[in-house]
Amino acid sequence: MNRSELVSLIRQKKSFLCVGLDSDPEKIPAFLKENFEDPVYEFNRQIIDATLPYAVACKPNIAFYESMGSAGWKTLEKTMEYLNSLPAKVFSIADAKRGDIGNSAAHYARAFFDTLGFDAVTVSPYMGEDSVAPFLAYKDKWTILLALTSNAGSEDFQVLQPQIPALLERLGIRATYWKKLYELVMEKALTWENAQQIMFVVGATQAEMLSQVREIAPDSFLLVPGVGAQGGSLEQVAQNGMNKDCGLLVNASRSILYASSGEDFAQAAAHEARKMQEEMEKLLKDKGIV
Amino acid sequence: MNRSELVSLIRQKKSFLCVGLDSDPEKIPAFLKENFEDPVYEFNRQIIDATLPYAVACKPNIAFYESMGSAGWKTLEKTMEYLNSLPAKVFSIADAKRGDIGNSAAHYARAFFDTLGFDAVTVSPYMGEDSVAPFLAYKDKWTILLALTSNAGSEDFQVLQPQIPALLERLGIRATYWKKLYELVMEKALTWENAQQIMFVVGATQAEMLSQVREIAPDSFLLVPGVGAQGGSLEQVAQNGMNKDCGLLVNASRSILYASSGEDFAQAAAHEARKMQEEMEKLLKDKGIV
Repeated sequence: MNRSELVSLIRQKKSFLCVGLDSDPEKIPAFLKENFEDPVYEFNRQIIDATLPYAVACKPNIAFYESMGSAGWKTLEKTMEYLNSLPAKVFSIADAKRGDIGNSAAHYARAFFDTLGFDAVTVSPYMGEDSVAPFLAYKDKWTILLALTSNAGSEDFQVLQPQIPALLERLGIRATYWKKLYELVMEKALTWENAQQIMFVVGATQAEMLSQVREIAPDSFLLVPGVGAQGGSLEQVAQNGMNKDCGLLVNASRSILYASSGEDFAQAAAHEARKMQEEMEKLLKDKGIV
Repeated sequence: MNRSELVSLIRQKKSFLCVGLDSDPEKIPAFLKENFEDPVYEFNRQIIDATLPYAVACKPNIAFYESMGSAGWKTLEKTMEYLNSLPAKVFSIADAKRGDIGNSAAHYARAFFDTLGFDAVTVSPYMGEDSVAPFLAYKDKWTILLALTSNAGSEDFQVLQPQIPALLERLGIRATYWKKLYELVMEKALTWENAQQIMFVVGATQAEMLSQVREIAPDSFLLVPGVGAQGGSLEQVAQNGMNKDCGLLVNASRSILYASSGEDFAQAAAHEARKMQEEMEKLLKDKGIV
């Protein structure tokens, strides 16, 4: 899916919601396990049907499938076959956070773009340009680079700045001369070939940093996890992060998937997704996008 | 496998060779594809049998299996079942370079340690402590953290140091006041819970940096790719990186796997592995380890 198709989808659905398929066999409703051979697939299928009217994107979290081995990968394949068979378009993201050197990266890109048919894959920047280039080589496919994530560990390295020795501080030379790691990652990534196919992951729990992110990447789409269960504010994300094309995909997983643990799980998921879509529609209207 | 078992294995085999199973369906000998239902599994099985006398570790590169989808994961499962069924112990490494937040990281840890039965998995540090902790929670299992990799892209972020403004340089204040990203990653990781179960990836192409790495992590095991096809020198790696327990696992993949493309591929692989083992035995003797 290219950028203008994605922006059209957002305008058409009045939503920038991404539903994260963190489908945990231990958390899905018990009756599915009793009645279906592949209960996670059945769960996914019903969640997709229920939430798709309110969402533009769908994001399986690969960890949850991989923990079940080849059987989990089979479930993932079936989920993607179903998603790609639907008449209504949806932007599909493999939340895989892969990151390896050239030849291996090319195999990962093939796994997600060719074998599974995803539109986008999340990638770690730690190994640098030649670990990302094989993903960017795919036309109309997207590489979503980790920048500033929503977890506590984002403090460990992503916001590292040089530790200015006390001497320098006493001289009045401030740390803001130097950039944080995530800023350098974004700046450098935007110089790479096919950088127009890059999105960045920026956590909703980092909403106050979104204005700085927008200074570096005014046009890029941002994938924003952390609204909902992790406590980020949708309104603040939109306020600081929305650009003229919306430029946001806000993910919610647990708050939608596990809204009910009973037989009404799909209706409950639809209800949660719809609530978010309505809030998003308002934010898009405020910005004059729809 | 715990540390003393690993060190015993190195002493017993007089080797610190790790054979990387980057088994590419397009590169394995043609006759395997004609004669076996799962030619990659058959290739792996024969490579394992041929090289195990000379190697202490075996490292499937997950990208090569994942690009074949669930069928590739099935091949990986069969390979690990075979490896774990052997009477001779071998240290198994999932070269997966995963890195995600808590709950997802726990699922990745389960995939590689429980479902597949690996001893170790490679992990990216970008998302910080809470993305690594679920791997470190497994007793007698190892987390091999990316530090300074062997590829060109390692220059992009891993060796980043603050860019000292010209003014400061003119004042005679040098950049060495500040640490590089990979040094900070290693220092911080060694403060985490169960840090004794951490190894680091340091590329052989970075052999001149190994002395600095050893200042930060004198006791840790290092997984060293980049000898062989990528051009790193085994002798220089041993000179700068070996500690009293050896402390090194040096990986070779392509130079062993594809030593011959004919029916003698396994003998050719054994020959290459043996050459490396003999060189390693000499280096271990020089250091008084065997």
